[in-house]
Amino acid sequence: MDKRRYRVLGIDPGLTRMGFGLVEEQGSVLTHVDSGVIETDPGLAVSDRLAIIFSKLNVIVQTHCPSSVAIERVFLNLNRRTAVGAIQAAGVAQLVAGGAQLQVHEYSAAQVKQSVVGVGGATKEQVSFMVDRLLRSSGQLGQSKFPDGTDALAIAITHLNNRGFARLKQVAG
Amino acid sequence: MDKRRYRVLGIDPGLTRMGFGLVEEQGSVLTHVDSGVIETDPGLAVSDRLAIIFSKLNVIVQTHCPSSVAIERVFLNLNRRTAVGAIQAAGVAQLVAGGAQLQVHEYSAAQVKQSVVGVGGATKEQVSFMVDRLLRSSGQLGQSKFPDGTDALAIAITHLNNRGFARLKQVAG
Repeated sequence: MDKRRYRVLGIDPGLTRMGFGLVEEQGSVLTHVDSGVIETDPGLAVSDRLAIIFSKLNVIVQTHCPSSVAIERVFLNLNRRTAVGAIQAAGVAQLVAGGAQLQVHEYSAAQVKQSVVGVGGATKEQVSFMVDRLLRSSGQLGQSKFPDGTDALAIAITHLNNRGFARLKQVAG
Repeated sequence: MDKRRYRVLGIDPGLTRMGFGLVEEQGSVLTHVDSGVIETDPGLAVSDRLAIIFSKLNVIVQTHCPSSVAIERVFLNLNRRTAVGAIQAAGVAQLVAGGAQLQVHEYSAAQVKQSVVGVGGATKEQVSFMVDRLLRSSGQLGQSKFPDGTDALAIAITHLNNRGFARLKQVAG
């Protein structure tokens, strides 16, 4: 891949719905590469559901060769079952990244909102609107072109923004 | 493997120290097969640590061919970092089990103590003493022959006890 291109796989972790979104940066232009949701049947055993997520994420990484992975940090104040499932799914994403020797970066939901919308308490609709704008899609307010995986795309964009700031600081310092 | 033999892989999940213990039941006799601890360096990235655990657990499963896996349920009232690490490590164990098409059974710490010692609030030393007794080792009180992985052996024994009760109930019913 072109050295000036940098591609991030964003992950919005969940056991039932695991959002993923790939964003590529070339110069100052962001492009949507792929996004969607890995769904697993709550009727299956957790071990089988994690195996499905593992297998599908591996295919995504092998297909799109991201430069790094950005994952949303799971908030522990959910109900126990949801939180544990999301943390285990996030662990599987970490494992896939580790297997592919990719660095993992974690961001809180507030950091993602702050980075994409400019406000830590932004609504889901505001995040969706900004993701569409930033990825130069023709989505209208509240009607994202990327309804599935929008949060994951926002996480990927957050990492690209963060990385940009870090590089600017380096140059300035 | 002999049909009358049933081998359980017990897992005491943790990111820094992951206990494992294999116990085999033949008739009413329990035998220690293997036990130990998978340790990972806290200085490494979480993704790399989970990849190490994944790889080592896969080797253990391939080497010892357990009939099923028993995992201690992580208590969420630890500090966040420890709890998240343990849940992710438990998720990796679930994933390995899923990949090998093994059923996973979860037990709380209190269930394990209750099952092995007879008291839900038993001390670590009491658990260790009973594990030695049940596995017919010559360990002395407080000096387990299996210091590493003792808790994991206790989890495996818990599942064997539970399975025994379930089968007795079936016969009685």
